[in-house]
Amino acid sequence: MRQPDGWFSTTLRVRYQETDGMGVVYHANYVTWFELARTEWTRANGFPYSEIEQRGLYLPVVDLSVQYKHPARYDDEVIVFCRPVAITEVRLKFEYEARLKNEPDKLLVTGHSEHVWVGKDWRPARLRKMAPDVYETLVNSVQKAGGM
Amino acid sequence: MRQPDGWFSTTLRVRYQETDGMGVVYHANYVTWFELARTEWTRANGFPYSEIEQRGLYLPVVDLSVQYKHPARYDDEVIVFCRPVAITEVRLKFEYEARLKNEPDKLLVTGHSEHVWVGKDWRPARLRKMAPDVYETLVNSVQKAGGM
Amino acid sequence: MRQPDGWFSTTLRVRYQETDGMGVVYHANYVTWFELARTEWTRANGFPYSEIEQRGLYLPVVDLSVQYKHPARYDDEVIVFCRPVAITEVRLKFEYEARLKNEPDKLLVTGHSEHVWVGKDWRPARLRKMAPDVYETLVNSVQKAGGM
Amino acid sequence: MRQPDGWFSTTLRVRYQETDGMGVVYHANYVTWFELARTEWTRANGFPYSEIEQRGLYLPVVDLSVQYKHPARYDDEVIVFCRPVAITEVRLKFEYEARLKNEPDKLLVTGHSEHVWVGKDWRPARLRKMAPDVYETLVNSVQKAGGM
Repeated sequence: MRQPDGWFSTTLRVRYQETDGMGVVYHANYVTWFELARTEWTRANGFPYSEIEQRGLYLPVVDLSVQYKHPARYDDEVIVFCRPVAITEVRLKFEYEARLKNEPDKLLVTGHSEHVWVGKDWRPARLRKMAPDVYETLVNSVQKAGGM
Repeated sequence: MRQPDGWFSTTLRVRYQETDGMGVVYHANYVTWFELARTEWTRANGFPYSEIEQRGLYLPVVDLSVQYKHPARYDDEVIVFCRPVAITEVRLKFEYEARLKNEPDKLLVTGHSEHVWVGKDWRPARLRKMAPDVYETLVNSVQKAGGM
Repeated sequence: MRQPDGWFSTTLRVRYQETDGMGVVYHANYVTWFELARTEWTRANGFPYSEIEQRGLYLPVVDLSVQYKHPARYDDEVIVFCRPVAITEVRLKFEYEARLKNEPDKLLVTGHSEHVWVGKDWRPARLRKMAPDVYETLVNSVQKAGGM
Repeated sequence: MRQPDGWFSTTLRVRYQETDGMGVVYHANYVTWFELARTEWTRANGFPYSEIEQRGLYLPVVDLSVQYKHPARYDDEVIVFCRPVAITEVRLKFEYEARLKNEPDKLLVTGHSEHVWVGKDWRPARLRKMAPDVYETLVNSVQKAGGM
């Protein structure tokens, strides 16, 4: 299974609720899965997003894209890959891929999301100042992924 | 169309997202529709739920039931009926029905939800004291519906 | 952790998508979690629901109830317990509990769902005749749970 | 309110279920709203998507993007604009905007989606041959929007 430097992966099982009348996963749900992968990525890197929020920092999405290649179906096991690929003091960008666990060559979707750090007042927050530990980890991860 | 004393109704169109792999509305979505009817009921009665929250009052669900009679499908127009049927100083109970707009004899679901008034701290709040205007309206509505 | 005879359990992590403006899990999502537990229960018992559907059998919900005790929040690990408690040739009833993994004494919700077996035409199907293996497993499970 | 040639609009009210723990609309829901606008667009143009499906044609999403400008909140009335901007015999592209009804200058999101026509077997279908009436309407709409 392809998982080069800097890719993190998490596995989920497609819920019946996530399917639609076409018998496949409703397309908006992949966006939710991307976020789920981000959450697990933050946990694996030592700063669960739930704790970041408790420090008064939020990471809303400002840009999103998804390319749909192949539909997933009910009860499929899906691996969602994610990695941070660009970071500045206020912005952060992730890339994603989702694949069937049993057929890892079967690419379901690719995509990216771009985020800004904000405070509780929704004003941009400088991550390096507000949470230098998180900032450092992110910079290192982005470098590992070959981005910047 | 049946709509006796005290019933309020609101209409919605089934979204593709709300269907599932069986080609019908996923059963949890009726619960969302009940809430949508409650929201419109509060608006029609002069105290939109969004304003109630701004006054620091919340109305979480403590008990819920749904009886499923007939499935709704994508793009169906659905009428959701609701009415308050019981009220105390801290609790409130609603009844629901959903019907196809084009076949109002076709009962989709029936159900009820029971709620408690709480403050921002999730502690029970006495509605009569906190928002006497809302309390009065609710008491009158329940009486119109023949309950208490 | 409490898990008496006949209870099956599965664990999930609360998704950000599942929270609502009150900062807790939106109440309809527990209904989705019940279904997720049913799916895992069928898999653990040797007849994944996805395979049952391939045999032309469906198990729509006809009755549902949830009692809400305590709210779950983003990123909580939740254990969903389920067990079949009653079965006839055409109907099946499950009971549920959800608890916080880290505080198993903290009961989040209890509930039940009742189902009928139907064919692709949505007409009731006699499980004993259509899928005797599934029927036998269910009868045994219900007996283990002390029901019938 | 801006609505130049070729833009179609539909209005919705934000559901509590659509909000998340940040107190705003969960970002994946805008994708569902885009689809809702497409559905209403097809209805307004004389070929409801539900009828298209009955003719054995499906229109899955192959590419999607969303730019998030401003968050919508519970109970906000939102206008979703959409228009087809490009069409070939097998592909179709829509553009979107969502705005607050009470503050139409407040742009919530922009976005696009790209689709392929497929048959029940998920193989590409030539719309011009399969449904020439739909194809003609789409071509005219794209021309009105200044695209092609």
